[in-house]
Amino acid sequence: MKVATSSAVERSPSEHVGVGHTVGPDSGHHSAANVDSSPPESVPGLPVGVDLLARLEGICAHRGLGNLADRLSDMVAFIGQDLETFELELDRLPRDARLVNRSAHHLLARGGKRLRPMCVALAARLGGGFDQRVLDLAVAVELVHSATLLHDDVVDLSEVRRGAPTARTVYGNAASIFAGDWLLIEALRRVHRCQLPDTLEELFSVIEEMIFAESLQLETRGLVSADRDIYFQVVEGKTASVFRWAMSAGGRAGGLGDDDRLQLVEYGRHLGITFQATDDLLDLTGDSAKTGKLLFADLREGKMTFPLIVALERDPDVRPVIEEILADEVVSDHAADRVVNSLRETRAVDECLQLARKHAGLALAALEPLPDGRARRALATVAETIVDRDL
Amino acid sequence: MKVATSSAVERSPSEHVGVGHTVGPDSGHHSAANVDSSPPESVPGLPVGVDLLARLEGICAHRGLGNLADRLSDMVAFIGQDLETFELELDRLPRDARLVNRSAHHLLARGGKRLRPMCVALAARLGGGFDQRVLDLAVAVELVHSATLLHDDVVDLSEVRRGAPTARTVYGNAASIFAGDWLLIEALRRVHRCQLPDTLEELFSVIEEMIFAESLQLETRGLVSADRDIYFQVVEGKTASVFRWAMSAGGRAGGLGDDDRLQLVEYGRHLGITFQATDDLLDLTGDSAKTGKLLFADLREGKMTFPLIVALERDPDVRPVIEEILADEVVSDHAADRVVNSLRETRAVDECLQLARKHAGLALAALEPLPDGRARRALATVAETIVDRDL
Repeated sequence: MKVATSSAVERSPSEHVGVGHTVGPDSGHHSAANVDSSPPESVPGLPVGVDLLARLEGICAHRGLGNLADRLSDMVAFIGQDLETFELELDRLPRDARLVNRSAHHLLARGGKRLRPMCVALAARLGGGFDQRVLDLAVAVELVHSATLLHDDVVDLSEVRRGAPTARTVYGNAASIFAGDWLLIEALRRVHRCQLPDTLEELFSVIEEMIFAESLQLETRGLVSADRDIYFQVVEGKTASVFRWAMSAGGRAGGLGDDDRLQLVEYGRHLGITFQATDDLLDLTGDSAKTGKLLFADLREGKMTFPLIVALERDPDVRPVIEEILADEVVSDHAADRVVNSLRETRAVDECLQLARKHAGLALAALEPLPDGRARRALATVAETIVDRDL
Repeated sequence: MKVATSSAVERSPSEHVGVGHTVGPDSGHHSAANVDSSPPESVPGLPVGVDLLARLEGICAHRGLGNLADRLSDMVAFIGQDLETFELELDRLPRDARLVNRSAHHLLARGGKRLRPMCVALAARLGGGFDQRVLDLAVAVELVHSATLLHDDVVDLSEVRRGAPTARTVYGNAASIFAGDWLLIEALRRVHRCQLPDTLEELFSVIEEMIFAESLQLETRGLVSADRDIYFQVVEGKTASVFRWAMSAGGRAGGLGDDDRLQLVEYGRHLGITFQATDDLLDLTGDSAKTGKLLFADLREGKMTFPLIVALERDPDVRPVIEEILADEVVSDHAADRVVNSLRETRAVDECLQLARKHAGLALAALEPLPDGRARRALATVAETIVDRDL
């Protein structure tokens, strides 16, 4: 059995706030929230980021989280235009018949969550607002993110990304490598032309951090290790770093003072960790039709997620089963059942959800000293929404 | 038979000024210059660039080119210290146990010709001289070059580079990809901190040109095509562009005016084409012990070199044999003999040498309007030496 299209582990009912989780192969009951498993549909023609917010709004309304739904609706009114401008600008990226170009556009056209450009826009709107420089920075952070995905997919030999074949499977590894290089250069060029103090230097440092975190992940790949320290080093370097930069750059473009900007950086860091923790959960509990990822994908790529680390700490006997999945890539019924059992019995999924909530809380706390208003409320909404996302 | 360690084609005696060419499998005679085939040895402890110049000096003296030998000797006296400073700075690049780091240092430690940093230093010395900014630019251009080699070796699945296993065969493809990313960022960071007008923007454009040229090469890879237009597009984008930038950046750091700097850019462009043409020759006539490359390596990687294009134009019947080498990678006795014959009969090697000489001449012509002095003479020496290099 390939655990590919269904959720492998269900969060315990008390914690379970998501809709659309199908029930794992081993689960004997349906939670109330699972009655309607169809997510709100994407609306063609809407800018990707707006579409995401609208779908999240629908999910929240469906969950009875009317307050959060209202806030998401306000957020669309607040930055919907920014997100549309962003999509138009991204779409203006040169387009020709070259392989490198087609590889890059293949990935960009698949959307994504546009969470990093959203961070840039909201940080800027906390100050002076959205202008050409903010637009350049928002596009840049999405391009840096896309460049790392293009290279990561080659490194991990990934076949699926955002619910479609990866660029490397369509246009080849070589074209993906060059496409990543190209998007990186295009990103740096945009940041450079903004001429904001320290912003390009900070991006160089962030990209370097990302590369070193990738290298650390590479060195530990395939090792069944319950090392939280390495896990958090990778999360800080690979994920949190870019969110930090997005907030700092947006804040600078919006003319914020250093104190406010550093609060935003703190917010970005915790948002990044929250995002990664929920990503880990989706690797085990997500609906692959919505996330576009195969379940157990991280483990099959030799990467330890936080729930697996917790399971290993508390149930050392699961080690040989995890080793089997690492070695074989194809997940047998027996192995999947055993890991799923271990994740349930050790409450590893709940612990990961707690990790996400803790850092979402720290992200919210970082916002407190900042001037109240729609931008701050929108940033709070992002942190609160992300922790329970199921897409 | 793998044509791996011997020269496959000998230049016609009238053109043959190199030493150290072993005689091809098909050649019935030895030229006078081939009596002593041992190249001057590297001297351990000498900076790489100085060592290269000293070896070239020995070769020229050996060939009876006393004037060129004297000029190379003067060049060592003139920029030997710069090249040593360069090597020390390159060696200061952070070094740790990470895979990405070890991959990068694996390539850097193998030396190379340091021709691009030499260009930066000489361009700067035509004006204000060698300082910290020139050093940063010289290191940057070598790092950009190294980054492209790390990515190219993954794309081409190359096993040998500079006479040693490629970084990717020692540390893996993934580490090579990240190492290339790292060196690229480190290069851009150095150029940025120089704060020279337009220099970083120009480097962004050059890297973009390189990526598009790589993409074009990728699209035509494995096609047996006698298309000179594509060949020159690739050479301009992949090779000449970096030399152009090295000359422009060095000139700017040296405080040259725009007129002089544009002459240097013109010089760099022609030097790059000369360099590529001689590289093509070494793929067919070189001594792999000195170049560190397998013979017919370009062809085996699916790349058409200039001599092969000429041979195809004049001897269309050789096409199926070239296709056989492209398909099989391993070069049979029969195929090697047939291509070697074609290259000889069509005088393709001589035509490639003429191409190199033409552009070396254009490089020299570009120097003419510049103020005379040791720097200009050294640049002329580089152009004259490179055309007949056999390492």
